Amino acid sequence: MSHNAELIAVGTELLLGNIANTDAQMLSQGLSALGINVYYHTVVGDNPQRLRKAVELAKSRADIIITTGGLGPTCDDLTKNVLAECFGKKLVRHEESQRRIEEYFAALGRIPTENNAQQAMLPEGCTVLSNDWGTAPGVAFEVDGVCVVMLPGPPRECRAMFEHRAAPYLRRFAGGDILSRTLRLFGVGEAAVEQLLREKMNAMTNPTLAPYAKEGEVELRITAKAGSREEAQSLIAPVEEELRGALGPLVYGADVPSLEAVVLELLKKHGRTLGCAESCTGGLIAKRMTDLPGASAVFRGGVVSYATQVKHTVLGVPEELLEEYGAVSDPAARSMAQGAREVLGCDLAVSATGVAGPEADERGNPVGLIFVALSAPEGTWVRRIQAGGIRERARTLAASHAFDLIRRYLEGLPLELEELTL
Amino acid sequence: MSHNAELIAVGTELLLGNIANTDAQMLSQGLSALGINVYYHTVVGDNPQRLRKAVELAKSRADIIITTGGLGPTCDDLTKNVLAECFGKKLVRHEESQRRIEEYFAALGRIPTENNAQQAMLPEGCTVLSNDWGTAPGVAFEVDGVCVVMLPGPPRECRAMFEHRAAPYLRRFAGGDILSRTLRLFGVGEAAVEQLLREKMNAMTNPTLAPYAKEGEVELRITAKAGSREEAQSLIAPVEEELRGALGPLVYGADVPSLEAVVLELLKKHGRTLGCAESCTGGLIAKRMTDLPGASAVFRGGVVSYATQVKHTVLGVPEELLEEYGAVSDPAARSMAQGAREVLGCDLAVSATGVAGPEADERGNPVGLIFVALSAPEGTWVRRIQAGGIRERARTLAASHAFDLIRRYLEGLPLELEELTL
Repeated sequence: MSHNAELIAVGTELLLGNIANTDAQMLSQGLSALGINVYYHTVVGDNPQRLRKAVELAKSRADIIITTGGLGPTCDDLTKNVLAECFGKKLVRHEESQRRIEEYFAALGRIPTENNAQQAMLPEGCTVLSNDWGTAPGVAFEVDGVCVVMLPGPPRECRAMFEHRAAPYLRRFAGGDILSRTLRLFGVGEAAVEQLLREKMNAMTNPTLAPYAKEGEVELRITAKAGSREEAQSLIAPVEEELRGALGPLVYGADVPSLEAVVLELLKKHGRTLGCAESCTGGLIAKRMTDLPGASAVFRGGVVSYATQVKHTVLGVPEELLEEYGAVSDPAARSMAQGAREVLGCDLAVSATGVAGPEADERGNPVGLIFVALSAPEGTWVRRIQAGGIRERARTLAASHAFDLIRRYLEGLPLELEELTL
Repeated sequence: MSHNAELIAVGTELLLGNIANTDAQMLSQGLSALGINVYYHTVVGDNPQRLRKAVELAKSRADIIITTGGLGPTCDDLTKNVLAECFGKKLVRHEESQRRIEEYFAALGRIPTENNAQQAMLPEGCTVLSNDWGTAPGVAFEVDGVCVVMLPGPPRECRAMFEHRAAPYLRRFAGGDILSRTLRLFGVGEAAVEQLLREKMNAMTNPTLAPYAKEGEVELRITAKAGSREEAQSLIAPVEEELRGALGPLVYGADVPSLEAVVLELLKKHGRTLGCAESCTGGLIAKRMTDLPGASAVFRGGVVSYATQVKHTVLGVPEELLEEYGAVSDPAARSMAQGAREVLGCDLAVSATGVAGPEADERGNPVGLIFVALSAPEGTWVRRIQAGGIRERARTLAASHAFDLIRRYLEGLPLELEELTL
């Protein structure tokens, strides 16, 4: 039997346009991966009457209702109160949730307010979806063949709660096994990948293949539907093999969280330490590395040499070099990476220097021109990139190129980017 | 008379989560600026039955219905056909639109398909909203006191069509001017602010006051509705003054983009340069500073001293100090900030050192314990914070505390955080 879900987002900030309903997008993707159809999204404000109407309507046409938002202390737990009422359930105190909320605030050195305590009042007989990413617990229950799941609204919490709590709960409604595997590519544009694979993609029905562009990277998602997980896997494997053959070193991983996560694992595997010297990226390389728990095992640190003088005084880039070639140049990137290796005492160091904008530099280097270097015991390599005029995108790309250099070096791949042959 | 609108987005790609419904966000902002209330957003797929149900429902509860999507040749002009049917209108050929479509394709060196030609069939007696950004014309009409507006789905087209075609058409329904002003607070929790202001908020009708929690910060939005912009401003001003009085230095700005943007302006105004020394934040302070165009005027750089040894070798933190107190300590934070000022040659420097997790450190300091310091010519100050167990949140909070120290120092405010008195 095929199930159909309806998503109800609760929040006046959505109706005012302060935020987009990205929760609905994330949940729709997740439900689609479970083989559960989504027929409607509804957004209502923090208004009990209108929420009640939306719930009654959803009840009449969907067998899974997922709400987002309206669980926090500032909205009087609107969602929980209205849903409990619509499904004839009383709210009772949940001791475990009460304790978790108290602990959460104790860890912050604060005392929960009465509003916070209200969050531990949950519909009787429900499955509690414990929240390790915030204070409001999620809730799931089934009444008269309708399954209700309530999740918190903040996107970071909502995503984690769906992946780790709601999706496992909903797996019972999954329509067969749907399995996805995502190849991640760096160093090639979406349009080139799309052109290379278009005919193939159009001809495929199971598995399917879809490209997604994402912050200077491309994802290729292979999705198979089959009676069992093993069967789905055996449909995916030959497609993955063929794609890896066609795309070569552009593929940096499958089902991996990020380029920097791949780099961290490679550094650990090869027992190498890393440092960085950053100008235009201004700390972003170090930040992305240290976003990862466990980075301290291999990451020694970095120097953000934003002012030209700091490149000389801290990293030891010769003043004459900076005068002759300028801070945005192949020799400067090279010298920064070499300097970082020495100053920070690490095996490998990367550097980035470029014009992040908003204007061209005083030597006439255009916005978006960036040099990225890798220094290792065997030598130093530089990649020159033109990252375009959008500041944030240029910085992200520069940091990703630095990680790509490390990855290719540690995997023994060519450091030059490949051209795709059609 | 106050009008209320309902947004209906048509597109299976929304229900599959391939894209987020950003059109709804854009339209909600635009309608709010026109003083038109939005009570519901609905998303349906490319399915005539379900779209018809959504339209019938909207007709019963809204007096303005705005649809997005489903106007293109690939979906058989679903939206236009269903809406015309629901409102008892025939489709007739619109010569001007026919001509525009032919011209559009001629300019591309292509010939319109039969589907394209269908786009010139429009509901009889409607106002045509000509589309200079794509092929499908928009449509507006009124039947039995309900106003219907249909816009194309692609966000770029939808935005332009709303701003230049639909908004002028809808101005007749505008309910005066709506103006918002957002106070931004750092150093206090949402629940505490809510508890302090709850009674006041509940008693207010115009302007209204609403708090939002956002990455360790709180926003307070004051929204006024009035006959003119000036009148709305004069409603907001006394509320802002009262809030600033009650919240004191916790308010770091009104209608400002971020804490770091406020800090950047203050540094420029006072002619001071900044540097940083980062351990647990791992580059995030530098990254947030250099996210801002123009940061190079005051930001000299930073040292990411992730490994303890780098705190000594690059920042000059004495080894004995690190041995006696450990890297996560008041003296270490103090010495890091002082070292950064010297090494980077800047007027002010901030530092952050703490346990970002996932585990307590070898001295037993708990996850989330962080010391943040500011060093200035007159002295060095340290703030000890307990940022909780979520890595990303702890790092964001630590960086924000560093910016808050700089802000308070430059504004001559107390560096200690205030307790809110209820």
